[in-house]
Amino acid sequence: MPAPAAVTSNRPASAGAAPDLAPVFARLRPQMAALDVFLRAQLAAFEPEIRDLADYCLDSSGKRIRPALVFLSGWNGTGGPPAPALVRAAAVVELVHLATLVHDDIMDAADLRRGRGTAMRRFGPEAAVLLGDALFAHALNLAAQFPTAEVCLLVSDSTRKVCTGEIVQTLRRRATDVTRADYDRVIELKTAELFRVSCLLGARLGGFAAEFTAAAAEFGRQLGIAYQIYDDLADFFGEETRIGKTLGTDLRSGKLTLPLLVLRERLPADERATLLDEIAGRHAPDLAVRLAQMREHDVFSAVNAAVQSALAAAETALAPHAALPPVPPLRELADALRAQVGALRA
Amino acid sequence: MPAPAAVTSNRPASAGAAPDLAPVFARLRPQMAALDVFLRAQLAAFEPEIRDLADYCLDSSGKRIRPALVFLSGWNGTGGPPAPALVRAAAVVELVHLATLVHDDIMDAADLRRGRGTAMRRFGPEAAVLLGDALFAHALNLAAQFPTAEVCLLVSDSTRKVCTGEIVQTLRRRATDVTRADYDRVIELKTAELFRVSCLLGARLGGFAAEFTAAAAEFGRQLGIAYQIYDDLADFFGEETRIGKTLGTDLRSGKLTLPLLVLRERLPADERATLLDEIAGRHAPDLAVRLAQMREHDVFSAVNAAVQSALAAAETALAPHAALPPVPPLRELADALRAQVGALRA
Repeated sequence: MPAPAAVTSNRPASAGAAPDLAPVFARLRPQMAALDVFLRAQLAAFEPEIRDLADYCLDSSGKRIRPALVFLSGWNGTGGPPAPALVRAAAVVELVHLATLVHDDIMDAADLRRGRGTAMRRFGPEAAVLLGDALFAHALNLAAQFPTAEVCLLVSDSTRKVCTGEIVQTLRRRATDVTRADYDRVIELKTAELFRVSCLLGARLGGFAAEFTAAAAEFGRQLGIAYQIYDDLADFFGEETRIGKTLGTDLRSGKLTLPLLVLRERLPADERATLLDEIAGRHAPDLAVRLAQMREHDVFSAVNAAVQSALAAAETALAPHAALPPVPPLRELADALRAQVGALRA
Repeated sequence: MPAPAAVTSNRPASAGAAPDLAPVFARLRPQMAALDVFLRAQLAAFEPEIRDLADYCLDSSGKRIRPALVFLSGWNGTGGPPAPALVRAAAVVELVHLATLVHDDIMDAADLRRGRGTAMRRFGPEAAVLLGDALFAHALNLAAQFPTAEVCLLVSDSTRKVCTGEIVQTLRRRATDVTRADYDRVIELKTAELFRVSCLLGARLGGFAAEFTAAAAEFGRQLGIAYQIYDDLADFFGEETRIGKTLGTDLRSGKLTLPLLVLRERLPADERATLLDEIAGRHAPDLAVRLAQMREHDVFSAVNAAVQSALAAAETALAPHAALPPVPPLRELADALRAQVGALRA
């Protein structure tokens, strides 16, 4: 696949950049095709009785941002088919992610994901718990197939952290005293960690030196932070048709995400009390009023500033390595996310 | 710890043997103490926020039969403290087992296990799903700390099989057409597999040759089959105080275990129809009537024959290796299980 010269040779300005991740992913078509073939082949590793269930979860309609991070961090700049080690690592991080989605949907009693029934709805919560477990187990089995135990060590450690982030968030649902530090800690664990390890594995398996591997890992971590804050912002400022989910779900489920933390800080006392009653589940949330208050108190700008700060840190991490092939496409990914956040305000 | 000479030097006759596993475990005291110390030390690997939750799950009151299989299969016959590799492997299989228990209790909406609240009841089902995941992830992380990836490969493969067995059982709940082959397949996956890998790891890490390792694995597999059939039999013929759970739970939850399969076969058509209505959940089960029918049609003998057959196969697997140190204590374990089954009839 010939990569478009304009985006590999020069970093495009963020203003006016592509409004979604499509251009970044366009260059990854051979990589994603190889990932698809690899993931399909994994079905044979599952016992016949659960092959259809596993197949159902290996849905290829997701964003596959973690595999993209593996491929881009290991980018050799020559094009051609991806190295088998990168494909395997991409499959590992995607399977870990898919397993967490299967379990998340149980927690949220979610009916739909990506426009079709969740595994939970289709096979029942009991089977979905175990199916998520089987996906986790297979991800670690693939990780153990590398020549050294390093991938398995990194991925199992990361998986525990992702689960811990989700546990902390779950235990703090409906709590009204969540702090910004609590929020930062949860997104560090539940999102930034697997982004970090995806970049680390890509750079390491792509044969880059320790300095760049550490820089790529920090890029991934900061991108993960930016991505999660963007996602939490889109829950209030997105368009339902575009982000593919109902707005205001975090408010309804009592999760104090950053937009709500900013709103809590900026509201006068009486209105704040009403907001906290909604978080605590003492009465149903009035989303229209909360959205109007968010506009009035310019919550968007404050949250956007946090996204920009994480994106800037992500790019700073890469700066000393600008000459390496992975850096232009990774920067392009950061720019694409910056543009996506900008598009939310429009 | 001096091992009692009588049980290591000669295989005790099964009739009149010890009524429980206590004598076998008595010789494992230093091993189990080392395992406890090792498991407690693992708490430091969990993030501070979930350390108490993980601690709650590292309950030491369980039977720890899988760690026992690791230690006995790697038995060097000299006494002394256990090899660190055996302790680590024992911790891995126990953590996998504890994680499956946490998830099983969610499925069964179980309030109590081993006389105290389940993780599900204590932390809520959402946190319990994720806590089980974190325990799995840590088990695989420990497995990845061995010098080669073999342990991680074996344990992740085994974990997937255990989950698959549970999924198949879950999807077939309330089905009235479950066959003996279906039952055999489920117990092979959900129980025999982790018993098999426990023995395999013990023998391998204990430094035994491939022939004995394969024999120990087959012993573990057959012992697992025997153990699960015993457990299913105890659900009807046990004493509640002794087995620590309510009788008839399989019947109530619509699981056609071997005692019920035998009863289904032996009942006249009209009574069979009533049993199948109970399995299907069309009306509440009458446990007293079912127990009376089981006695009338001598279900115990048929199920006991299946246990004895698996135990005989377990011992046959070891026969060519009678001179090796692990063989006497492994045989003793099989004998202890044989005695436990016999005690159910009494």
